[in-house]
Amino acid sequence: MAVDIGEQPEVYARLSEPEHADAIAAVAARVAARQPRHVVLTARGTSDHAALYGAYLTEIRLGLPAALASPSGITLYGARPDLSEALVIGVSQSGGSPDLVEVLRVARAAGALTVAVTNQPGSSLAEAAELAIDVAAGPERAVAATKTYTAELLALLMLVEGVRAGDGALPAQERATLAVLPELAALTLADPTATELAERYRFAARLVTTGRGYAYPTVREAALKLMETSYLAALAFSGADLLHGPLAMTDPDVPVLAVVGEGPGGTAMREVLTRLGERRADVVAVGPSPVEGAAAQLRVPALDERHAPLLDILPLQQLALALALARGENPDSPRGLQKITTTR
Amino acid sequence: MAVDIGEQPEVYARLSEPEHADAIAAVAARVAARQPRHVVLTARGTSDHAALYGAYLTEIRLGLPAALASPSGITLYGARPDLSEALVIGVSQSGGSPDLVEVLRVARAAGALTVAVTNQPGSSLAEAAELAIDVAAGPERAVAATKTYTAELLALLMLVEGVRAGDGALPAQERATLAVLPELAALTLADPTATELAERYRFAARLVTTGRGYAYPTVREAALKLMETSYLAALAFSGADLLHGPLAMTDPDVPVLAVVGEGPGGTAMREVLTRLGERRADVVAVGPSPVEGAAAQLRVPALDERHAPLLDILPLQQLALALALARGENPDSPRGLQKITTTR
Repeated sequence: MAVDIGEQPEVYARLSEPEHADAIAAVAARVAARQPRHVVLTARGTSDHAALYGAYLTEIRLGLPAALASPSGITLYGARPDLSEALVIGVSQSGGSPDLVEVLRVARAAGALTVAVTNQPGSSLAEAAELAIDVAAGPERAVAATKTYTAELLALLMLVEGVRAGDGALPAQERATLAVLPELAALTLADPTATELAERYRFAARLVTTGRGYAYPTVREAALKLMETSYLAALAFSGADLLHGPLAMTDPDVPVLAVVGEGPGGTAMREVLTRLGERRADVVAVGPSPVEGAAAQLRVPALDERHAPLLDILPLQQLALALALARGENPDSPRGLQKITTTR
Repeated sequence: MAVDIGEQPEVYARLSEPEHADAIAAVAARVAARQPRHVVLTARGTSDHAALYGAYLTEIRLGLPAALASPSGITLYGARPDLSEALVIGVSQSGGSPDLVEVLRVARAAGALTVAVTNQPGSSLAEAAELAIDVAAGPERAVAATKTYTAELLALLMLVEGVRAGDGALPAQERATLAVLPELAALTLADPTATELAERYRFAARLVTTGRGYAYPTVREAALKLMETSYLAALAFSGADLLHGPLAMTDPDVPVLAVVGEGPGGTAMREVLTRLGERRADVVAVGPSPVEGAAAQLRVPALDERHAPLLDILPLQQLALALALARGENPDSPRGLQKITTTR
């Protein structure tokens, strides 16, 4: 898991090389030409969080309604929603889960434009889809997905920005940001704070993660990583939903990891932080700027909120790894899990 | 909270009376006449789980793609997705949350058909929407929503089945099921098992709830209710997602509440139960039939999975209430919460 985490700057660099960037641009151009009216994303586990990021991008950057489809409507109940004007994107590290493959087959038969985003170009999912994007993360060693997650994030960002451009080619400013991304990721990973912070959570039984907008996929993924590797109960909430009920659960014994970026999502988190302060919650903030009242800070280089998910998750992966080790667990093969999960 | 819970059979009966049923049928007929191409639901907290049920109904019963919109895309980032052919449904007990009101205003201005589903007919949400459904649950006393949740479920079911019928009028078989619903709900609530079971969880720090398909909203809502009233960490997973990671977290010390109905969702849960058994999880099943290996069973009358959510949540509400009392908490006013939560 440590090796997988450490390879992420390299994966970011690889996806921006012409071999991969051009392939994504070609898919983006074909998507743009088809002018889909709405976007449906389908995924499971970690990839579902990448899909959620894709949904935010789609709504905000493309102005297209986006839905995360529950495969069970189609696979269990035989739902056949009208997807004739949809772009349907399946996101899966292995490309092997039968439920996702079936959703893409049904969507394609209904006339949808289908795209597989996977780390296995020869997988069933890639074959079922009309178009496929290889996220090119290389073989992932640990069961807990890390570099395939961030590779999926970046591939979806490149896809959406390519569709927005119309011809698939990324604007110069976007290319400039992607060019510095590997270095910023390496800088983030070089910071030992997250690893040191693991001691703090050695005996925590549960933990809350929270963020808003583009940061919400990050907190969902951080919670899953902590559950998978350290077996603590990690609960992820959008900052808004936290105020609508689960806030009652927080007290000084429930640590909170809050992603607070520089932008509208981070600004909206200020009220959440105030309310958490009233409940005397122990807050560790993730973001570029110090947060008043926070017990600690996981600093990441400043990027706008649209790009921040590519960095914010990195210290949280490190924290999950270090916490698993501090607890004497083996993060490379969590109990009860296999690398490829098949569900129907 | 006990009084609110106990009133649910009466609320079911009231919504089926001509005064309310005809009003919902009239809204359904207008929706059917507009022939929306897709459906977007938006809600927070408990109402978000009712909206999720509405999304399953929409996809399976109407064959329309359904999305749960995150308000933040629109309210924080200024997203303006093309909603001109959408039916946009805002679900809110109070109808007072500014973010939902703004989503409905933006959607209506974009040409969407907008419907508010709320317990406050004169609320900002009802005023912002073109059409409104009063779920007629009466004043809710406790902060933790119970009868407004089930009233929202039933109102959404009546809306969707009315749209499916075309003229808003429910088919005879649907009316027959709704006619027996108050009695089945009263029978379910008369069973003391859920209240007795609370003792079992007196010292649990965390708990997992799981179900698939139509049962997924139920397990999400059960988890929220347990968090709000008893402050334990309750984690809800679709059965499929549980296998993609969080299964690692389960062990004999993590109790699992599994909703296992009679239908495709329940059948798909069998594999999940087997895997939970391998991890020696302590499973309590909710459903009409005994589940092999389960430590206990919360029996509910047999209904098909589409209607089962109207009953399955009842013993889980009772469990949340009894557990809060067993822990010496006040479920009527959970710490840190108000009845009406406003988020932007």
